[in-house]
Amino acid sequence: MSVTAPLGFRAAGIAAGIKSGGSRDLALVVNDGPSRAAAGVFTANRVKAAPVLWSQQVLSGGRVRAVVLNSGGANACTGPEGFQDTHATAERVAGVLGDSAGEVAVCSTGLIGERLPMDALLPGVDQAASQLSRDGGLAAADAIRTTDTVSKISFKRADGYMVGGMAKGAGMLAPALATMLCVITTDADLTSGQLDAVLRRATSRTFDRLDADGCMSTNDTVLLLASGASGVVPDLAEFEQKVTEVCADLARQLLVDAEGATKAVAIEVVGAATEEDALLVGRAVARSNLLKCAVHGEDPNWGRVLSAVGTTSAAFEPDRVNVAINGIWICRGGAVGDDRSKVDMRPRDVTITIDLSAGAQSATIHTTDLTAAYVHENSAYSS
Amino acid sequence: MSVTAPLGFRAAGIAAGIKSGGSRDLALVVNDGPSRAAAGVFTANRVKAAPVLWSQQVLSGGRVRAVVLNSGGANACTGPEGFQDTHATAERVAGVLGDSAGEVAVCSTGLIGERLPMDALLPGVDQAASQLSRDGGLAAADAIRTTDTVSKISFKRADGYMVGGMAKGAGMLAPALATMLCVITTDADLTSGQLDAVLRRATSRTFDRLDADGCMSTNDTVLLLASGASGVVPDLAEFEQKVTEVCADLARQLLVDAEGATKAVAIEVVGAATEEDALLVGRAVARSNLLKCAVHGEDPNWGRVLSAVGTTSAAFEPDRVNVAINGIWICRGGAVGDDRSKVDMRPRDVTITIDLSAGAQSATIHTTDLTAAYVHENSAYSS
Repeated sequence: MSVTAPLGFRAAGIAAGIKSGGSRDLALVVNDGPSRAAAGVFTANRVKAAPVLWSQQVLSGGRVRAVVLNSGGANACTGPEGFQDTHATAERVAGVLGDSAGEVAVCSTGLIGERLPMDALLPGVDQAASQLSRDGGLAAADAIRTTDTVSKISFKRADGYMVGGMAKGAGMLAPALATMLCVITTDADLTSGQLDAVLRRATSRTFDRLDADGCMSTNDTVLLLASGASGVVPDLAEFEQKVTEVCADLARQLLVDAEGATKAVAIEVVGAATEEDALLVGRAVARSNLLKCAVHGEDPNWGRVLSAVGTTSAAFEPDRVNVAINGIWICRGGAVGDDRSKVDMRPRDVTITIDLSAGAQSATIHTTDLTAAYVHENSAYSS
Repeated sequence: MSVTAPLGFRAAGIAAGIKSGGSRDLALVVNDGPSRAAAGVFTANRVKAAPVLWSQQVLSGGRVRAVVLNSGGANACTGPEGFQDTHATAERVAGVLGDSAGEVAVCSTGLIGERLPMDALLPGVDQAASQLSRDGGLAAADAIRTTDTVSKISFKRADGYMVGGMAKGAGMLAPALATMLCVITTDADLTSGQLDAVLRRATSRTFDRLDADGCMSTNDTVLLLASGASGVVPDLAEFEQKVTEVCADLARQLLVDAEGATKAVAIEVVGAATEEDALLVGRAVARSNLLKCAVHGEDPNWGRVLSAVGTTSAAFEPDRVNVAINGIWICRGGAVGDDRSKVDMRPRDVTITIDLSAGAQSATIHTTDLTAAYVHENSAYSS
């Protein structure tokens, strides 16, 4: 169902010939209203792709009629010409819809530093527009894949309205945001200000807590579009919960499909003095290549957890830290705890719990193991 | 020649039975004076191994008679008992030398979270003491290896005196410091204050600029011992240069022997507003797993360089950054530059030059590629 689950949205996903090989590479999502309220969050990377710079301007107006997304090229580090390519794409969409380019968001994903083949992309926009339909959400989700092995879609039903979404992302998964494109839709009726507040809170607790490889992308974009077509003005708390659930569901799908990963690892930090401390520790541990290798080898190497914790400025005393792996407290008081042979790391899901014994706050960061397959995929990606 | 190249030092390296397999695992370095002036720098990790806590106390006195080093166990995260083991080791050395334990530094390396086999280690101290000799430097360097495939030694001759050194380290190579133990000796005559100033400057420009895998150890220790046996009071600038050369030589040996690495990568940041900015950018790029995979695949993927630069707070404008790989400026003004097919990445040494166009400062960080062999070695390390 994806982005077309809520009323008021049509979508399409087609093969424009941007990717060699003939698979789908262009998606179009259109909001038929009556409302066009929208919000977006974007990569914190200071090197931003042209479509990010463009879409930030569009979203500053709080209204989105359509989103056009392409795989097969990130249009990042492409100079003024790359920005003109994004602008021309938005104009083409506006042309076929008879609308303003100022309300057309653009997203791109793929290799950095190469111009998009506009001679394929622009006719692709026309073709996608001709195929827009109420059941085009799956094709759209398929068209934005790069190294993703599966499409990522989600939807949740609420009290008289729906929230749907699609996402892509398999590498460069790091906070603020993961390397990802995501479009979330709803037929509830909300203002762009309400959507913005909800989206920021929902992404900060989901996508922002995903860190597969510590690499921050130039193209990350999450958009939330409301058509108002259900006529329902939702309870804001319920709406935020539904959006957060869709984000969490999509984030989980990204993690499971992360390049080369064989484990989904939750780094659960408890007993922190502040939530910021918990996040700091969780991210530091999630970025330890040595630990990620150990998880791959199903080795409950808590020493690598502690050495990562020790690199942070979080409040803790080394001799009061406890660490559990899959529920077995193998480190107590900063030293050897329960018998490590009791730890079963064979399941795909691995939970590493770090108790800082410094307060009552907590947070969880989600990561993956580091594998030879990740190395292989990323050594050969551009060839 | 190693640590026994300068006059006044004896060393030994023996198999005490700490490691299974019978290879050397205990080293002893003794300063016979007449001076015992010494300085040390230690890991910035807040989770410090027992021997680091002990040796920091010893070095606060500015005098070292002997250093005892073991491989086969880090004695980190071992609680009060682990600290007692370190203390007992220093006392045993002091006993056989007829000296004070307060002037015996201790270094350990190996797995975190396991007690040392003191029933093997303490008799090993006696055996090592009985084998101390003026040509024991090579055996000592051999005894401190863990996953190191070769011993790392260096020495430089100066005006009437010498500087020698040994080091170990192959994984957990990250700034402040690399996971490493290093003992540097000289027969020049200097105060502990002079040694401390020289050692801090030398390590900050050598070992601190090595970042193989971003993982900071609990045990890093670099010691500088001066016997004064040459009778020469050195020119301080010349002495600092010689110590820096020995550190740089050892750092280079660590990098080349880093776990699984097939490339030695210099991240050279130029045109920075400040040296701190240059270091910040260099470290961010050196920690990009995606870039390190690309280097392994001999793919001149400058987009991954820019996306790493963009995560920092350094002063730069994205559209003014230039990137060269092995001398070919494939990114100019934040966009496509010279033809990437001109880049030859086949040599073991790869230089990535990043021109921030923001000032006149520069710095270089040294790292390695990320390989399936690294993953393999670190998945299986403790088994």
